[in-house]
Amino acid sequence: MKKFEATAKGVYAIAVTPFTADGAIDTASVDRMTDFYLSCGVSGLTILGMMGEAPKLDLAEALAISSQVVRRAPVPVIVGVSAPGFAAMRSLARGVMDLGAAGVMIAPPPALRTDDQIINYYAQAVAAIGADIPFVLQDYPLVLSVVMTPKVIRQIVMDNPSCVMLKHEDWPGLEKISALRAFQRDGSLRPLSILTGNGGLFLDFEMERGADGAMTGYAFPDMLVDIVKLSQNGQRDAAHDLFDAHLPLVRYEQQQGIGLAVRKYVLQKRGAIAHDAQRVPGASLSATARAEVDFLLSRLARHDPRAEL
Amino acid sequence: MKKFEATAKGVYAIAVTPFTADGAIDTASVDRMTDFYLSCGVSGLTILGMMGEAPKLDLAEALAISSQVVRRAPVPVIVGVSAPGFAAMRSLARGVMDLGAAGVMIAPPPALRTDDQIINYYAQAVAAIGADIPFVLQDYPLVLSVVMTPKVIRQIVMDNPSCVMLKHEDWPGLEKISALRAFQRDGSLRPLSILTGNGGLFLDFEMERGADGAMTGYAFPDMLVDIVKLSQNGQRDAAHDLFDAHLPLVRYEQQQGIGLAVRKYVLQKRGAIAHDAQRVPGASLSATARAEVDFLLSRLARHDPRAEL
Amino acid sequence: MKKFEATAKGVYAIAVTPFTADGAIDTASVDRMTDFYLSCGVSGLTILGMMGEAPKLDLAEALAISSQVVRRAPVPVIVGVSAPGFAAMRSLARGVMDLGAAGVMIAPPPALRTDDQIINYYAQAVAAIGADIPFVLQDYPLVLSVVMTPKVIRQIVMDNPSCVMLKHEDWPGLEKISALRAFQRDGSLRPLSILTGNGGLFLDFEMERGADGAMTGYAFPDMLVDIVKLSQNGQRDAAHDLFDAHLPLVRYEQQQGIGLAVRKYVLQKRGAIAHDAQRVPGASLSATARAEVDFLLSRLARHDPRAEL
Amino acid sequence: MKKFEATAKGVYAIAVTPFTADGAIDTASVDRMTDFYLSCGVSGLTILGMMGEAPKLDLAEALAISSQVVRRAPVPVIVGVSAPGFAAMRSLARGVMDLGAAGVMIAPPPALRTDDQIINYYAQAVAAIGADIPFVLQDYPLVLSVVMTPKVIRQIVMDNPSCVMLKHEDWPGLEKISALRAFQRDGSLRPLSILTGNGGLFLDFEMERGADGAMTGYAFPDMLVDIVKLSQNGQRDAAHDLFDAHLPLVRYEQQQGIGLAVRKYVLQKRGAIAHDAQRVPGASLSATARAEVDFLLSRLARHDPRAEL
Repeated sequence: MKKFEATAKGVYAIAVTPFTADGAIDTASVDRMTDFYLSCGVSGLTILGMMGEAPKLDLAEALAISSQVVRRAPVPVIVGVSAPGFAAMRSLARGVMDLGAAGVMIAPPPALRTDDQIINYYAQAVAAIGADIPFVLQDYPLVLSVVMTPKVIRQIVMDNPSCVMLKHEDWPGLEKISALRAFQRDGSLRPLSILTGNGGLFLDFEMERGADGAMTGYAFPDMLVDIVKLSQNGQRDAAHDLFDAHLPLVRYEQQQGIGLAVRKYVLQKRGAIAHDAQRVPGASLSATARAEVDFLLSRLARHDPRAEL
Repeated sequence: MKKFEATAKGVYAIAVTPFTADGAIDTASVDRMTDFYLSCGVSGLTILGMMGEAPKLDLAEALAISSQVVRRAPVPVIVGVSAPGFAAMRSLARGVMDLGAAGVMIAPPPALRTDDQIINYYAQAVAAIGADIPFVLQDYPLVLSVVMTPKVIRQIVMDNPSCVMLKHEDWPGLEKISALRAFQRDGSLRPLSILTGNGGLFLDFEMERGADGAMTGYAFPDMLVDIVKLSQNGQRDAAHDLFDAHLPLVRYEQQQGIGLAVRKYVLQKRGAIAHDAQRVPGASLSATARAEVDFLLSRLARHDPRAEL
Repeated sequence: MKKFEATAKGVYAIAVTPFTADGAIDTASVDRMTDFYLSCGVSGLTILGMMGEAPKLDLAEALAISSQVVRRAPVPVIVGVSAPGFAAMRSLARGVMDLGAAGVMIAPPPALRTDDQIINYYAQAVAAIGADIPFVLQDYPLVLSVVMTPKVIRQIVMDNPSCVMLKHEDWPGLEKISALRAFQRDGSLRPLSILTGNGGLFLDFEMERGADGAMTGYAFPDMLVDIVKLSQNGQRDAAHDLFDAHLPLVRYEQQQGIGLAVRKYVLQKRGAIAHDAQRVPGASLSATARAEVDFLLSRLARHDPRAEL
Repeated sequence: MKKFEATAKGVYAIAVTPFTADGAIDTASVDRMTDFYLSCGVSGLTILGMMGEAPKLDLAEALAISSQVVRRAPVPVIVGVSAPGFAAMRSLARGVMDLGAAGVMIAPPPALRTDDQIINYYAQAVAAIGADIPFVLQDYPLVLSVVMTPKVIRQIVMDNPSCVMLKHEDWPGLEKISALRAFQRDGSLRPLSILTGNGGLFLDFEMERGADGAMTGYAFPDMLVDIVKLSQNGQRDAAHDLFDAHLPLVRYEQQQGIGLAVRKYVLQKRGAIAHDAQRVPGASLSATARAEVDFLLSRLARHDPRAEL
């Protein structure tokens, strides 16, 4: 098993799940996609997240994909195990760890409201999967309707030593990164890796606020890797120049509902997967939308040759 | 396989799932509970619904319980197959039908909003599980946040011949029953069994509005059976007298969140299950709450000897 | 001004707002209704709550009704001042206090999620209306989607000396009363009047858990007054007997959406108001529903002569 | 009164409401701001929208601001009149029309769910304010949780001749513009002005999909005016070049919750208002956030001299 700790840095790509046109898992593309992400320089992979269409897979499929990716990738692989109940969460979590996953990711169920409900949920989740499995806390209020204050996140991290990373996806969220880093400076929060999501829409400033990198699925993970490196090296203007060149497409891909269709379309054009199909229910791009993406790619190609497709 | 058709009438008990104190499935109690419901005179059983703690089971457990109940019960067994995605729904649905289930029940996912989204969801669900599996449409806005108008229900029923029953659980919902029955009188809706939920809180009038019976889990299914019979026989005052005697407890059991704890506590007292334990996360009754239920039972026993426990 | 303090006990009727058939305020009925509530033995009146159709009034109307009721009623009158913003809340609150209201009631806006958001909201509300105005904290998660733990309520009460009462309307909520009373026994919560809502659906046990009375609008406030008295006198069985006789109607009136139509229909039959009209948007009762209420009243009349209408 | 019809085109700026540091309305800045927007070349002004902090004003304040802006601006002024009830909506709508407003804007209340509920709500709203007042239909599911399909929008427009404009703010929403324009081509939808919101985040493609302009409050309305013109002239690359230069700031300002603080900060720097204060409750910018905005402005100034502040 590869190490997965609170010192993690860099880009963990949120991997798509490749399907064929008829909805079967495209096994050949799973390898191709894994290789593609690795070639982009990612530090890890996160599979079976929301943008990995995890809820559309059954358990056997989830385990098969996990096994295939874990065997192929020399980097830590995190597996999304969010589930309606703890029995299914445990089955999947123990299953993928046995296969060699480095850790799991857990999102809160949408019904949680109070601070205590959220804190208790994570205590129960850790009791269910076992305190030996490192896990990522996913904080994504826009989609999940669960709002975690920095204090609540601190409590979860301090209560559960197996919590090693925050997938930061609050919106807006820049001040939240600053607040968590301030907790660490005042000694009330132990080390915690913070990787950011939201399709990269704020990665430029998230890095400056103290993020350790990105955990998101933008179709140019190589750009995310570059931004993280430039930022870590203090090359602020270069980081922003590259970021700004990609922003029109990042923004387009970040549309709820059809964002994944955009992402898969670009990944297919880049050769990372053979088909851009989603399982039902899923959005598809109109001819106009595809033309808009092509137009954005052509404009991007003036600044970044990787967009010449 | 027992027949499950739009002509179904009577009480389909929403079965609890019996657990031991440590959260394991209490296999002995599964048989005991099945026998208990049958002795109450139910026309069918619905297992793995929300009050059956279905989301807390993994697939293997769900199949095992289904198999055990189906083999023992000479009445139609409906299995809840609501799932975050269609692959898991299909696996469970095909699995339980192979085991001899009579049909399945499908609740809409909470994110659905527009009429078309709801109608499309059921079209996709039927495509996923197969049009050969009879299914129950669950309409439960209080908990699911999905609001289906009578027109939308009619559309789903007319679009999908395999939809044979509505689990009516709107709140308030009396006018909805009247509206659906009016559609049938005007010829725009084909035959449809309507069984009502909400713990039986409105069963007295639901029957009078045209319901075919109840599909709910109140701890006295024998009372539900009696009410349905009295109502079908036109014994209005007798039906209301019995209903009113139970209403204080029905009301107490209908509390969201702790209702299932009340139900299991009474079922345990009645000998239907060995333990009243729930899997995590689940509410438990305080000593005061247990005393309140005992008090309600003692008052009920004056009118209904089945409550002498 | 009548005193309104944390020692308040008894029944504060949630008053309806009487309209004529064309939606105008029925001024004559405002007096008639006030007299009716007083004749029922209420300890106070709460006007312009949700069931008082407050959001359907403009400011001038709200002030006019407040003035009329306050002048006529020798008991404390509480006025609902929940508003989308603090300027409107302040205008209404200062206005009605000038007219002689005893206090105001404030519900949290539905968007609040975290503990801190709720606590801060009440701090801001008090800053807006002034710390000299006694207020009722309304806790009604079923309708408002805001969940306040007992700890959060305690914090609000301790932070704001002008908070003198909780309108308890959590669902389920019995344990919440017990938790708050336990806080008082351990010294962490100062005196606080707790009056319960939910149409009276749990008043029998709420009193036994430590409530000081009811603040709700069931169409038989005289029954609520009796229950509170019987319970305070320790006449448990008598309290439950009376409660159980009313429960079929209480339950019917407690239906979300059409409950107010039921309430106004019964109040009209009792002579408390001249018309049962609601302003748009509002539900109306079908002929079948009216017949159901009549049937419930006729059954109730066997136990309680006040229901002979 | 200036004309406000379905042929409206161009930019209608969503105006902020200027406050002094202590929360009073900054009357001098109301004029200054009006002049600023006019100098940017806007075709109309929309005041008292959500980003105008309308819910924080009382009725007298709302009327006073409306009067001041309407008297000064030679362009149509639209006033947001969304309210918890129709009496308040009517009071404000009639009041501002008497003052010379060109029309009003109405957002749906968050509780609406079904297609029929939404359609009925607008019928009731028009009945309340009067069919003689031209109104803007606001479609903003991200914040309001109300999802209107193109068919529902068409129904509202066809049912209500006084509906002259859609404030398009669905997210994602490009296909919705295409669907509505297709309805017009097939003759099922009458002329309708479509102005787009979302802070301008998709204005580049919204124009290409058939929008008539923008109704949003980005702090560079002059840029919005330029984009609309360039797009209308078919200068696609120039439109995108200008758009892309602003996108990093547009994106930063589009953060829910703190976006208005960013907007007011920039408007203050541009001299449009004297203070960037918001009324409580409102977000404020940290020093870091202000520095981030300054940095974005400095980068933007390389492409657009208007950002040299």
